[in-house]
Amino acid sequence: MNRHGYESLKARFRRAGLLDDVLGMLHWDHATLMPVGSAGVRAEQLAELKLLHHEIVAAKNMGDEIEDVRATFEAAETTDEWDQANLALMARAHVHAAAVPAELVAAVAKAAAACEMSWRRARADNKFADLVPTLETLLGLVREVAAAKGAALDLDPYDALLDQFEPGGRMARIEPVFDELTSFLPDFTRAVLDHQRTRPKPIIPEGPFPVVAQQAVGRLIMERIGFDFERGRLDTSAHPFCGGAQGDVRITTRYDEADFSSALLATIHETGHALYEFGRPAKHAYQPVGLAGGMALHESQSLTLEMQACRGPEFLGFVAPILADAFGDGPQWEPDNLYRLFTAVAPSFIRVDADEVTYPAHILMRTKLERAMIAGELTVADLPAAWNAGMEEYLGIAPPDDASGCLQDIHWPSGAFGYFPTYTMGAIAAAQLFGAARAAEPGIDEGLARGDFTSLIGWMAVNVHGLGSLTDTDGVLKRATGRPLDLAAYIGHLKARYLGQG
Amino acid sequence: MNRHGYESLKARFRRAGLLDDVLGMLHWDHATLMPVGSAGVRAEQLAELKLLHHEIVAAKNMGDEIEDVRATFEAAETTDEWDQANLALMARAHVHAAAVPAELVAAVAKAAAACEMSWRRARADNKFADLVPTLETLLGLVREVAAAKGAALDLDPYDALLDQFEPGGRMARIEPVFDELTSFLPDFTRAVLDHQRTRPKPIIPEGPFPVVAQQAVGRLIMERIGFDFERGRLDTSAHPFCGGAQGDVRITTRYDEADFSSALLATIHETGHALYEFGRPAKHAYQPVGLAGGMALHESQSLTLEMQACRGPEFLGFVAPILADAFGDGPQWEPDNLYRLFTAVAPSFIRVDADEVTYPAHILMRTKLERAMIAGELTVADLPAAWNAGMEEYLGIAPPDDASGCLQDIHWPSGAFGYFPTYTMGAIAAAQLFGAARAAEPGIDEGLARGDFTSLIGWMAVNVHGLGSLTDTDGVLKRATGRPLDLAAYIGHLKARYLGQG
Repeated sequence: MNRHGYESLKARFRRAGLLDDVLGMLHWDHATLMPVGSAGVRAEQLAELKLLHHEIVAAKNMGDEIEDVRATFEAAETTDEWDQANLALMARAHVHAAAVPAELVAAVAKAAAACEMSWRRARADNKFADLVPTLETLLGLVREVAAAKGAALDLDPYDALLDQFEPGGRMARIEPVFDELTSFLPDFTRAVLDHQRTRPKPIIPEGPFPVVAQQAVGRLIMERIGFDFERGRLDTSAHPFCGGAQGDVRITTRYDEADFSSALLATIHETGHALYEFGRPAKHAYQPVGLAGGMALHESQSLTLEMQACRGPEFLGFVAPILADAFGDGPQWEPDNLYRLFTAVAPSFIRVDADEVTYPAHILMRTKLERAMIAGELTVADLPAAWNAGMEEYLGIAPPDDASGCLQDIHWPSGAFGYFPTYTMGAIAAAQLFGAARAAEPGIDEGLARGDFTSLIGWMAVNVHGLGSLTDTDGVLKRATGRPLDLAAYIGHLKARYLGQG
Repeated sequence: MNRHGYESLKARFRRAGLLDDVLGMLHWDHATLMPVGSAGVRAEQLAELKLLHHEIVAAKNMGDEIEDVRATFEAAETTDEWDQANLALMARAHVHAAAVPAELVAAVAKAAAACEMSWRRARADNKFADLVPTLETLLGLVREVAAAKGAALDLDPYDALLDQFEPGGRMARIEPVFDELTSFLPDFTRAVLDHQRTRPKPIIPEGPFPVVAQQAVGRLIMERIGFDFERGRLDTSAHPFCGGAQGDVRITTRYDEADFSSALLATIHETGHALYEFGRPAKHAYQPVGLAGGMALHESQSLTLEMQACRGPEFLGFVAPILADAFGDGPQWEPDNLYRLFTAVAPSFIRVDADEVTYPAHILMRTKLERAMIAGELTVADLPAAWNAGMEEYLGIAPPDDASGCLQDIHWPSGAFGYFPTYTMGAIAAAQLFGAARAAEPGIDEGLARGDFTSLIGWMAVNVHGLGSLTDTDGVLKRATGRPLDLAAYIGHLKARYLGQG
């Protein structure tokens, strides 16, 4: 067997993996602590590291070497499934990298930087017209990337973009699931709103909630969930994220002194991502197969904590006295009130503020719009009208302006087309996984009521985290739940939580 | 002229320079914020980046390419002096890197990591014997490096090590200066101690000095000196340092609630290093010629602030009310008392706590000992006896144990032989530069009395910072002061400050 060829490939992917981790550290620093005036030099550092990475993974000879190793793997009687998966992921990474000429990579990076800058201004000024020129340029380049990757991977252009974030993700597989959800949601949402009117309105806790007290609560919850502060940190940034490196996981949140819940939910959400990163198979560190799976699975881990576990009555019963202790006693901290608060539903304009029930509509609409843009069926100039029509269709509300509409998200201005579907795929997968975990480990609910996440995280460690990228999202779900991605558990969860059914 | 060849070399050194900056960011993070359990993964990131750097600068063909460009530079009628200096520095960097086989580089890194670990234990336990095996191994490898670099550079092995930290530094040039200082110091120190007995003893300010108040004073002084907080940060680490990257300069200090002066002096010292980094010629960013000069010049900038400017009566008059305001009124904050406090002299065991007058003896002794070790004339086993004899000879005191003696510094256990001389070269150069600056800019003293560093830093920006690595330490000093490194200004300064002469 061609061990030597495989070891040589592994050495180069190890170097690329370490460069990814260094990039992760620099991105974290950029978002948390970097002096404002250092953005220019940081951009030069990042560009050089990305170019080095590209040179390694897109190297001319690599395709042939991978083919040689694949042939020897096939000729061998047995080959380790991890090695096979790793080789397939190397091939995927190489094709993604080699499909796009270095000049196009650089042009996209430059256009995205310019577009992000004009987006910040356009959003602040509520002036979509100011975004149009840079977004048109960027979209044109992203469509070139999609065409080039599509040709190299033998995929529809949109699937080629999706595959960057969700290896193996294909709209032919996802679309029926999304269509079923699109049919289900309108009637369901109406029913939830009717049902909600029969319950008392939640008392909204009033601040100010001092940042120091919020930080202490967040750290306490992180410790209960199992965040390892000896190999990770919690810091503050404008947009919460989970970043850092193998064995050095850094999450962030942001504090609003008028609202205790936003930092807390973001902290819990990012802790879910962090546990996935902590739990990746150390044996395969710095290899493609040792990385977390696609973004759908990653989001399933953050949403298992944020939506499934921590908005449930068991955990809210545990956290209620902690919040009362931190912010001052009162009926607003009663578990029942917290449950009403965290399950309140109302269609709204801003995706990141949406509740669990109306959130998917934001994603279904964005997925439809970005597919049309990549297919050349929707122009940037026509986006605001399409957006507003979509909001009427999916949520029955009309944004008062573009700042509350098509200017709200950074994804498209940063060049990230093909990312949105993974949010809702993650929400669906979270329901499947949490359901399977509770069935397999009957102590999970009792544990959550005591703030003990051991059973839940233990099950996820074996069934998700420890698998790295051994298989794709459907593969992980089939192993863990017996079924690929489907709506049964998700709809069951929504009906139980929001209509008291089942 | 071979512009193409030169541009190609510049492109590769630019990449190496950016990798150095990325390494600088990771070192800063390591020393300030990194979770303790992430040391292992950080070591892997650093090792990979250093290997990448080595591959670029030690590339086989590079020596010939540099020779080609040199020939075309020589054939050309005129060549920019910056390009000429840059090419010479490229050649120096290449010879340093290519002289040492990759396996020896890796062996030294591994041995240094092991030696540092055993040094931390040995120092904590006051057990030199525990350091002997790893330091013997490391010294053996460093001597191999010194021999290899010496052969490649046509230098004495110790000079080859010194040249790593002080380009162009040669003991044949430095030794006469150090010998003269060795003769001068004993009688001078006795005279200072006699003189000191005729003055009132300083009142020692008593703490606790809250960290928050110390931080506020430190930041205020940094702002007065001219530290650019839009392109830099102040943080906390066990050992103060100046690090970071081009356009992103990060200094640290450490706080002792029982002693207000240690954090303040470290902050001022590191601010001196930082201003040098801020002032490097941006036009030559990421090229060897755009870097700061050798460590002697770097130390001259920190010591100009810490020793020359900020221990002088003018600045102490400015800072006295700030300290009284921060820590509570009292006679201990009178300018005269602060001056007595900051110029108190007493031979002591620990280098980093030494006063301005006795500090050089620590360096002169270490330089003698490390030269003997590199020459094979002093073994690790014999180091404690040689150290204690040296302390008697140079300072007239005997350390009570090795923890207060030859175990105190991290330099040798980390493999840094040839670094120590630059501390005292820097102190000498600081006196020359500060004297020349005051002669050229008569407003400097008045400025310091108002906490205004504009004239002083303006002069240094033109005469030191902006020169980058265009010339070596002697070259910078000759341009700026009319003389290469010599003792005249330094001895004049010491006699004026400590004996009231001149």
